[in-house]
Amino acid sequence: MLKIGLLGAGRIGRVHAQAISEHPKSVLAAVSDAVPEAAESLAEEYQAETRSSDDIIADASIDAVLIATPTDTHSDLIEAATRAGKAVLCEKPVDLDLDRAITCQTNASETGQPVMVGFNRRFDPNFSALKASFEAGEIGKAELLSITSFDPAPPPISYVKVSGGLFRDMMIHDFDMANFLMGQLPTMISAVGTSVVDPEIGQAGDYDTAVVTMTYADSRVAVIKNSRRAVYGYDQRVELLGSKGLLQAHNILENSVVKSTADGVVGAKPTYFFLERYMTAYRTEWSAFVDAVQAGADMPVTLEDGVAALAMAEAATRSARSRTPVMMSDVLKPVAK
Amino acid sequence: MLKIGLLGAGRIGRVHAQAISEHPKSVLAAVSDAVPEAAESLAEEYQAETRSSDDIIADASIDAVLIATPTDTHSDLIEAATRAGKAVLCEKPVDLDLDRAITCQTNASETGQPVMVGFNRRFDPNFSALKASFEAGEIGKAELLSITSFDPAPPPISYVKVSGGLFRDMMIHDFDMANFLMGQLPTMISAVGTSVVDPEIGQAGDYDTAVVTMTYADSRVAVIKNSRRAVYGYDQRVELLGSKGLLQAHNILENSVVKSTADGVVGAKPTYFFLERYMTAYRTEWSAFVDAVQAGADMPVTLEDGVAALAMAEAATRSARSRTPVMMSDVLKPVAK
Amino acid sequence: MLKIGLLGAGRIGRVHAQAISEHPKSVLAAVSDAVPEAAESLAEEYQAETRSSDDIIADASIDAVLIATPTDTHSDLIEAATRAGKAVLCEKPVDLDLDRAITCQTNASETGQPVMVGFNRRFDPNFSALKASFEAGEIGKAELLSITSFDPAPPPISYVKVSGGLFRDMMIHDFDMANFLMGQLPTMISAVGTSVVDPEIGQAGDYDTAVVTMTYADSRVAVIKNSRRAVYGYDQRVELLGSKGLLQAHNILENSVVKSTADGVVGAKPTYFFLERYMTAYRTEWSAFVDAVQAGADMPVTLEDGVAALAMAEAATRSARSRTPVMMSDVLKPVAK
Amino acid sequence: MLKIGLLGAGRIGRVHAQAISEHPKSVLAAVSDAVPEAAESLAEEYQAETRSSDDIIADASIDAVLIATPTDTHSDLIEAATRAGKAVLCEKPVDLDLDRAITCQTNASETGQPVMVGFNRRFDPNFSALKASFEAGEIGKAELLSITSFDPAPPPISYVKVSGGLFRDMMIHDFDMANFLMGQLPTMISAVGTSVVDPEIGQAGDYDTAVVTMTYADSRVAVIKNSRRAVYGYDQRVELLGSKGLLQAHNILENSVVKSTADGVVGAKPTYFFLERYMTAYRTEWSAFVDAVQAGADMPVTLEDGVAALAMAEAATRSARSRTPVMMSDVLKPVAK
Repeated sequence: MLKIGLLGAGRIGRVHAQAISEHPKSVLAAVSDAVPEAAESLAEEYQAETRSSDDIIADASIDAVLIATPTDTHSDLIEAATRAGKAVLCEKPVDLDLDRAITCQTNASETGQPVMVGFNRRFDPNFSALKASFEAGEIGKAELLSITSFDPAPPPISYVKVSGGLFRDMMIHDFDMANFLMGQLPTMISAVGTSVVDPEIGQAGDYDTAVVTMTYADSRVAVIKNSRRAVYGYDQRVELLGSKGLLQAHNILENSVVKSTADGVVGAKPTYFFLERYMTAYRTEWSAFVDAVQAGADMPVTLEDGVAALAMAEAATRSARSRTPVMMSDVLKPVAK
Repeated sequence: MLKIGLLGAGRIGRVHAQAISEHPKSVLAAVSDAVPEAAESLAEEYQAETRSSDDIIADASIDAVLIATPTDTHSDLIEAATRAGKAVLCEKPVDLDLDRAITCQTNASETGQPVMVGFNRRFDPNFSALKASFEAGEIGKAELLSITSFDPAPPPISYVKVSGGLFRDMMIHDFDMANFLMGQLPTMISAVGTSVVDPEIGQAGDYDTAVVTMTYADSRVAVIKNSRRAVYGYDQRVELLGSKGLLQAHNILENSVVKSTADGVVGAKPTYFFLERYMTAYRTEWSAFVDAVQAGADMPVTLEDGVAALAMAEAATRSARSRTPVMMSDVLKPVAK
Repeated sequence: MLKIGLLGAGRIGRVHAQAISEHPKSVLAAVSDAVPEAAESLAEEYQAETRSSDDIIADASIDAVLIATPTDTHSDLIEAATRAGKAVLCEKPVDLDLDRAITCQTNASETGQPVMVGFNRRFDPNFSALKASFEAGEIGKAELLSITSFDPAPPPISYVKVSGGLFRDMMIHDFDMANFLMGQLPTMISAVGTSVVDPEIGQAGDYDTAVVTMTYADSRVAVIKNSRRAVYGYDQRVELLGSKGLLQAHNILENSVVKSTADGVVGAKPTYFFLERYMTAYRTEWSAFVDAVQAGADMPVTLEDGVAALAMAEAATRSARSRTPVMMSDVLKPVAK
Repeated sequence: MLKIGLLGAGRIGRVHAQAISEHPKSVLAAVSDAVPEAAESLAEEYQAETRSSDDIIADASIDAVLIATPTDTHSDLIEAATRAGKAVLCEKPVDLDLDRAITCQTNASETGQPVMVGFNRRFDPNFSALKASFEAGEIGKAELLSITSFDPAPPPISYVKVSGGLFRDMMIHDFDMANFLMGQLPTMISAVGTSVVDPEIGQAGDYDTAVVTMTYADSRVAVIKNSRRAVYGYDQRVELLGSKGLLQAHNILENSVVKSTADGVVGAKPTYFFLERYMTAYRTEWSAFVDAVQAGADMPVTLEDGVAALAMAEAATRSARSRTPVMMSDVLKPVAK
């Protein structure tokens, strides 16, 4: 039984607490949060202790920590926890600053401790079924990847301002999905961003709508579309065109009911947001982490993956601002995989 | 926290054990089974005790029992448990014998204890969304109900022989679904059954394929189709035609991936069987039971509902054998609701 | 080039006039109708002559006649036209009276002239693709056939009164579809009919909602559902469950547009009625008739097929009235195919 | 009755001949083609004359010409035909050379004769239904347009070499669709092209896979994806995200049959290529042309529309080659609409 310390008891922390608690081989031992009430309420629900992050990291009886704190604390906590000999699962992104993330990767790797980055969508059964079909050769060679990823509604402006921007905060999931499916980093990234949903987002220096095109050394192409507002729900789709066919992962609907009336044929909407859509993915992600820790195996998503996605977000940000494609080699020095 | 005794540690018992255990307001206290190893293995997994059914029923600290034993023990256990002051959730069918079930209903009702019958499909989010839409008036008045219910593969002949027959064992769920949606018993039932899937099933005196048509006092019509074999999965669909439209609850698919190749456009199959399809329904069913017990409220599915569905199965059995429609009033004396 | 005489210039006559005229090997030469203005307007549109039915049949230069007159004239016209040496395509049903239809079949067959009955749905590309897939063995052996066939709105009561009833007027198409797909007549027919859509239809002695169950000598089962009202359009679906899978022919929608809003995901409705849904089928039907006439080949749908469907409608009518299953052998003496 | 001269009797010429001939208010009077046999065969089929293009244009009895000749003759023929007082429907693109197309537009406009450019997709019932829904305000303000347009198989290399390139030959339809839906030209175009399908296409200086992102003065964004190979058929989809919802026009399938077996759930493929998919659109396009000519009304698609799409193709070509976004104002001087 793995004893787990959860750092951060916010919305995403609660999701992880549930997955940790439901898993037969892990137990939520301690919770920390900058807001004591948040930690206490969560700790009480799961019969865990409330402690400081430092205390949890220093506690030799804790086997692993799950970092779900604000992004600007991730790198420090990853370094501290790995130095303390803990396995780590850290929420995305690793950092908003690419250089800091790379340093963190170096430091953590020197400890030899396993670190996994929480790109939960890799564990969504639909996307993993798509990947499995592709890897089984069912559509031949990949040629053109399209990712549609729309949030149901924009976050508050206060969040937008500290989010690191749409590319680092939101599209980073899609960059990782591209890496997951294409198996390689792109060579060039060309980004367009606007604020057509809400001008305030533009005034805050961010985009609410963006399209990023990526090209690969072997002539493959990928395109990612993001919007901060799809009033019908959380729109999460992937299409991969190959030499022998097309794979599509469609949305998951709230239910299977279809109503036909004189006004049309009405089906259910996509599930509304990430909890509804990705709860299974969070459970599977946690299970994969526990399995890897217990087996001493490689993490299914690594700090290197986290750095790669962040570098793509950095390239996209530069490209959107400069209105010029950006070469990945100008952003991230190639590291042997 | 409700302390629960689980009678029966077979396949369906294990499903309920999981739901009981996951629910924040119930705990699995004790398990019984005619096969001691089955009870022990389940008890160990959930840190519960292994005891006899009699012991569990006699234990005043147990608040409720869940009966998941073979059908021929249901009536006796319902009576014993209610006499002992327990709330009861009993798997369907109440009994294979209609008279015995009616006696059980009378006896249990005299104790004043709440008894719920496990028609899990009422709690499936798709069917309950369909019912909610209907009750909101979205398709006007109901006119023609169609239920398609196909198992992926026939059970072993040994099971067929003791099952009570397709109408009591399998279609009983659909009879209850009809009652759930139509809100009333039919007046006439006309059944056709054959054994086109496997002649051995016919030799065992049962059917593997059946169509039942039901008419209602107010001229509505319902039709249920059952087959013991749909090689593509568990096919569970409902269609309700009303004066202002049609409601359909479609199957739930294994995933949302669609593959388009030169050979066609291929989607995922329906989930394979009842665990995959109805796990959410079992959890919601359990939650509804716990809520009703704690609130002292009416059970969401009653013994009367269990008797009604059994009476319809009896009528269908007689109709299929005699090749004549059977009036429900010849099978079940009307009881005021 | 086949010279065609069209008997009947009503709604369905106009459909056929278009198909005749568009076909490169047939020309609409003459039109008759009891209402002269109807004949004249149609004749003018296609530059054909207006004549009486007798004149057209007597004209040796006319190669074939298409009978689209009221049902009670079909048998006489088929007999007259075949005696006059013409090929005949006659709209369904052959007659409302089974005995008269059988006599007509005998008389027509003695002339050796080819007669085709207009069961247009056999030529619908969706149903014929379903049949082709079945005949290619893709779902193994047929076990359970389901046909859903709902009209968008009931006909006027005046029409209901002379229609011969729902089974002969509307479900006759579905009986033929069952024969088309099952390749054999059923042995027993069990019908239920009500008037839940409009009590006036019931007062006129007819049904507006009906379910017919049919069993076959080899234990297969078929079920047909009819409703005179589906406010969302013309609902025309077929499902065939086999030992190795299920084939479904779904509705054809008005267009492929799907709208997702906060209110749900809305697609187009099925095409509204038979012209929209079956125009391609009418064209293909006509083409099949022309091909068979020119090749001297067997008609793709025969008078015997027309009689068989009518006999099933007769059996269903008797069954619904008597509330008892009817053996097909009591209605139609077996004829060697 | 409009007398029509058809210039060009190739594949697309035959499509138009059918539409002209079927229309009740137009007749195919004369056909020309550089290959006399092609003209003769088509003329014979429709009982038209075979003549030279010059003769047809000079013939005062011809009301309109349909230009379906090779692209490099379009501008000359448009100018000659309009000078001769004819209405013109010209296939896309107007020209491969933008300057020549602009000159042609100027010259034709001086004659005052109506010229329509054959962007058939505007007349596809699915895309026009999408536009109607959008214009009715059903999804609010447009924010992000996505067009997916994949051919089933690449054309021969010989054709690729003279085609003007993917942007002018294939994506020009999608540029026009963007203009049709967005109602405005983009301000900036950013294109990526590769030859991942067939390296020979790259060696011929063209792309077989391309993604073009366009931004608009009011911050809207559009993205177009093209591939020369989708082995499952002709993939033609449009998605428009708005402030109140999403509109999607899906593919049209060969039929509505779905087969469920142990291997999955298989539906029909999209119709294979443009004739199957767009025959209705060609008929409606022709009908719109005839209506506009007879009413003396504005053409539904103008030469200006043809020039605009060509300018976008020019911008995309430059952008893909230079790997830099191109401002539309650098390619096409703004013209008041």
